Amino acid sequence: MLVNGEFADSVKANDRGLMYGDGVFRTLRIEKGVPLHWERHYCKLVHDCAMLGIACPPIERLLDDLGRVSANNPDCVAKIIVTRGTGGRGYLPEAGIAPTRIVLASPIPDHAKLSEVAARFCDIRLSSQPRLAGIKHLNRLENVLARMEWNDPEIPEGLLLDAEDHVIEGTMSSLFLYNEGRLIAPDLGSCGIEGVQRERVLELASECGIPVQIRSFGRDDLLKAEEVFLVNSVIGLWQVVKIGDVSWNKGEFCATLRKWLQ
Amino acid sequence: MLVNGEFADSVKANDRGLMYGDGVFRTLRIEKGVPLHWERHYCKLVHDCAMLGIACPPIERLLDDLGRVSANNPDCVAKIIVTRGTGGRGYLPEAGIAPTRIVLASPIPDHAKLSEVAARFCDIRLSSQPRLAGIKHLNRLENVLARMEWNDPEIPEGLLLDAEDHVIEGTMSSLFLYNEGRLIAPDLGSCGIEGVQRERVLELASECGIPVQIRSFGRDDLLKAEEVFLVNSVIGLWQVVKIGDVSWNKGEFCATLRKWLQ
Repeated sequence: MLVNGEFADSVKANDRGLMYGDGVFRTLRIEKGVPLHWERHYCKLVHDCAMLGIACPPIERLLDDLGRVSANNPDCVAKIIVTRGTGGRGYLPEAGIAPTRIVLASPIPDHAKLSEVAARFCDIRLSSQPRLAGIKHLNRLENVLARMEWNDPEIPEGLLLDAEDHVIEGTMSSLFLYNEGRLIAPDLGSCGIEGVQRERVLELASECGIPVQIRSFGRDDLLKAEEVFLVNSVIGLWQVVKIGDVSWNKGEFCATLRKWLQ
Repeated sequence: MLVNGEFADSVKANDRGLMYGDGVFRTLRIEKGVPLHWERHYCKLVHDCAMLGIACPPIERLLDDLGRVSANNPDCVAKIIVTRGTGGRGYLPEAGIAPTRIVLASPIPDHAKLSEVAARFCDIRLSSQPRLAGIKHLNRLENVLARMEWNDPEIPEGLLLDAEDHVIEGTMSSLFLYNEGRLIAPDLGSCGIEGVQRERVLELASECGIPVQIRSFGRDDLLKAEEVFLVNSVIGLWQVVKIGDVSWNKGEFCATLRKWLQ
């Protein structure tokens, strides 16, 4: 683990990342020492930092950090955290404080090998906050509480709804439906994370002439869709084949899209 | 600063407090070495930890920590942070992980001496999340973004509304109105923090036979109220005497209540 480019395992206890969740993060795969889709991840990081008014670290520094944390582990998952840094009286940050940059590598989780999964609907609802929607920020208590709702190892992911009963995403993944030749992605205007893998799926679909709809949908729409799937940069694509009593066969669209993504 | 009872200024970078804002905090005054309203603060800490399923540290340890951080500074502000600790695969915490306990002291801020203040309305709206409402948790990006909206040192506090245009609280304080002999406190069922000082005000009013209403109100109700005031454990009571073009004279109720609180 590197903290501001130095091998370390700790950060200042008064870092605003800890005090307030005042920061952003990214999770990505490194394969044979190469961070996958790095430009996209960096663009998202720049965007998310800008939305919070945090100075984003230069790309060369992060690339250098990624190279160092993966040197002995060229196939791994990397996490980048950028906090606003240390300083300020209460919630008001000090002007010009230096951000804290944390880069760490961890083994690829076993569940990344899965292709089909069971899922469940979570009880907790995502709150609506247009100012933070889409951003991969460090205020993730809703995700933690959602993930604590179940402990069945056969169910690797839970689906989150908003207060209006729209299904938005998985606790750690982006959600899509495929139905009648159309790709449907939830609208993330008031909550949810705009991930790199979601962006790639939307672009691939457009490039291949598959009509894309970004719109709100409920539990029933989801359960009636021909194919339901989840994506993120670590797991790739998981087709949802079971939710409660409802089950799906392996889908052709998911199989094709998985190949395209790889 | 003490981390798990040891003098230290850092925490593990993979602490869930930093990764996800997975924790709670309290801010309190220490006067002549005595933590003010300690039992109330500890009760709130126990409650907030329980709401998130975090094991709350024993009261003796925290009292010991408070004594040690204030030993050379018997009049100070203390902050207690309790995170869920380090561990777990992603959002799911490991079973039985030990919480991280951080206790730090800092000087009493100059603004704690103020009695009357100017305030403003913030643009960002608090999101509605009944599962987290009332809890003093570490997901405080909304407060940070709100506090970054202005930089006028003559305005020490901003007021936060929810998406339905109800005024809920200050960025770091609880809000009350006093009108026609009644004390009015915002309903915190879907957002906001239930602070110790708010609890004390509500109890004092009840004990003194002042009718209390806990209900939603908007900007106009606030601007027409006879007295508007803010409380927290550090500042005591600030009467709001100016918001934009609207101003108030020093109020009798605020003066009396300030004495009671002391």
